[in-house]
Amino acid sequence: MSTTDGPAPARAATPGAEAGSGTGRDAIVRAARRAFTLRPYAEVTLRGIAADAGVSPSLIVKRFGSKEALFNTVADFGAAADALFAAPPPELGRHMVLTMVELRDRFGGDPLLRVVFSLGIEDERTLLRARFREQVTDRLAGALAGPDARLRAELIAGQLLGLGATLSLHRPDGAGAHARPERLADLYAPGLQRLVDGT
Amino acid sequence: MSTTDGPAPARAATPGAEAGSGTGRDAIVRAARRAFTLRPYAEVTLRGIAADAGVSPSLIVKRFGSKEALFNTVADFGAAADALFAAPPPELGRHMVLTMVELRDRFGGDPLLRVVFSLGIEDERTLLRARFREQVTDRLAGALAGPDARLRAELIAGQLLGLGATLSLHRPDGAGAHARPERLADLYAPGLQRLVDGT
Repeated sequence: MSTTDGPAPARAATPGAEAGSGTGRDAIVRAARRAFTLRPYAEVTLRGIAADAGVSPSLIVKRFGSKEALFNTVADFGAAADALFAAPPPELGRHMVLTMVELRDRFGGDPLLRVVFSLGIEDERTLLRARFREQVTDRLAGALAGPDARLRAELIAGQLLGLGATLSLHRPDGAGAHARPERLADLYAPGLQRLVDGT
Repeated sequence: MSTTDGPAPARAATPGAEAGSGTGRDAIVRAARRAFTLRPYAEVTLRGIAADAGVSPSLIVKRFGSKEALFNTVADFGAAADALFAAPPPELGRHMVLTMVELRDRFGGDPLLRVVFSLGIEDERTLLRARFREQVTDRLAGALAGPDARLRAELIAGQLLGLGATLSLHRPDGAGAHARPERLADLYAPGLQRLVDGT
């Protein structure tokens, strides 16, 4: 299950950013996402990620440098936020629903949902959540006009996470999996748009 | 973090259902929730749960019987669904938001969110998700009138999961944590109500 939920559009999804790609890179990134999502940061080791990815620890060091650098590569919601928020406010609700469905299809996984998996972990370090707040919620709050922008941004983030969660939960035979994206948007976008408008 | 997210109102929350309560029971239930949420079912052992709970494995067997029986005790969304859906359709959106906030406060954790944590696990067994679909989504779909009831039920479940996710993610200093429940409902309930109405 996590193999389809874990992956997400990191910066590497941006055209041109795959320059460093090559043998093992994708496997390392996938293993690192799994590790940082499912285990406390302190317990994650490059050795464990290497074993999961089927590569040598030295290859990870060569490609990514330190554990912190690898974390920073995989814990990035920036590209997803770029895509999700790329519409003027009056059209943002519908755009976010359609983009969420498209990103999930394109990358075979949800672009945001792993931050929720991380809530299940006993972890003093909340790096993944801090990154999400900064790259998704804070950015959105800054783009919203009207009262309670921060609260509305949190609730919009919630509805986006909830959309991905329910589509993943009800696979493969759920109604959401078979619905046309336009129909999903008809039903789900109005609530999002209302939060965007703040009225 | 998970200590405040993991717990949820199981049947034990129902008055009278605590009859079997006693030393160690709560610790066992908490440890079991953690284990079944964070690890594949096949990897969960009563011995591991006992160690986490600080009790003997034989006490778990005495109190709960088998691993399967223990799973069935902790993987129960029925009491949460009872509370969340206890309003007539025209008032259901607002009722669900206020009830979600109340349940989270009362039990020190989210009543539904652990089903999302389970998506992060590689697991052939999807018992927790099957239970959620049956106790939350199917039940809700059966209570909705109008077209696309199943799809709308999935999206309502998504918005409920998303509300819990965003409140947990943005703790302790998030705007949602400081907002009055009534204000949360003003903002979040209209989208839910629209999905209930199906218009």
